[in-house]
Amino acid sequence: MKLDFWFEFASTYSYPTVMRIEELAAARGVELSWRAFLLGPIFKEQGWDDSPFNLYPAKGRYMWRDLNRICEGQGIRFQHPSTFPRNGLLAARVACQFATAPWIGDFVRAVYTANFAEDREIADPETIADCLSALGEDPATILEAAASDAAKGALRVQSKEAKDLGIFGAPSFSVKGELFWGNDRLEQALDWAEDPA
Amino acid sequence: MKLDFWFEFASTYSYPTVMRIEELAAARGVELSWRAFLLGPIFKEQGWDDSPFNLYPAKGRYMWRDLNRICEGQGIRFQHPSTFPRNGLLAARVACQFATAPWIGDFVRAVYTANFAEDREIADPETIADCLSALGEDPATILEAAASDAAKGALRVQSKEAKDLGIFGAPSFSVKGELFWGNDRLEQALDWAEDPA
Repeated sequence: MKLDFWFEFASTYSYPTVMRIEELAAARGVELSWRAFLLGPIFKEQGWDDSPFNLYPAKGRYMWRDLNRICEGQGIRFQHPSTFPRNGLLAARVACQFATAPWIGDFVRAVYTANFAEDREIADPETIADCLSALGEDPATILEAAASDAAKGALRVQSKEAKDLGIFGAPSFSVKGELFWGNDRLEQALDWAEDPA
Repeated sequence: MKLDFWFEFASTYSYPTVMRIEELAAARGVELSWRAFLLGPIFKEQGWDDSPFNLYPAKGRYMWRDLNRICEGQGIRFQHPSTFPRNGLLAARVACQFATAPWIGDFVRAVYTANFAEDREIADPETIADCLSALGEDPATILEAAASDAAKGALRVQSKEAKDLGIFGAPSFSVKGELFWGNDRLEQALDWAEDPA
């Protein structure tokens, strides 16, 4: 069965998920659907104009330490970003418009690595262009398509779909309307995709 | 090494933790310290006058579904409480005052079971008295001790200690200042207690 993977490029806990989800899904024969969305508008409706990790400092301090432990356990690089959260709008438009491209997984991992391992500004089109070039893709063509009205509208529609599913954070996973939230629910979501109760 | 287990009687995700922590700690030879505390004052400082699961309905709806799945997976009874959150002040005073009593684990499990499996009002002294009687303890003596100034002060001190450790939710676990938050971090906290990095 298909697993919808909902991610937001600014989301810290989406980083360890992004780095392992494709391999785990493939190993179980679960079809993976990459669903980029924007959390900002959802947070705004809850009265938050910033990441809850900035608004609630104790929670934020814990999250960075926890993320550090998770990345260490998973063997992936981690560097505390000098800016948080970073604006992932451009990356999300690319990921939404090219969700079924053969390079989508590599692209998403490259952007998260830029943000959370290399401390690069993913709001900068140059960073996104570098991520695409490194995959052997043509940044100019892709960034032009991502700037089209169709691509902008598609991300808006997809973000609304996330909200309508009851999504309030990232990463989230959905399997036929059943919702799972958080990097530590990935295995359970994959179980569900294999054998929905 | 010793594991401090920080719990609040109103906390939903503390329920599955409470039902399994003593057995898991014993199996690993980890010494368990039962640390009841109050989350209300910590939430208040964050600007919340209610549980975040009530303040943020999408998060609340997800939590109840998630808790249901967890209890099912763990094979423990669950019934959506008709009142949430319930005031656990009296139970916390008992648990704080008698933290090293041989019946502490059974008592804590009985109170959580009353709240989350039997939909009983744990703010009602009768419910707490019933939990104690069922363990063969004398409710009158224990409730009198829990109402003493010493018991009240001990819970205040312990709640302040939780806050000073950076605790912002329950369940939490601490091992020599290293903090873990959430039912799904219990195994990791036990690993840490066995072999701190």
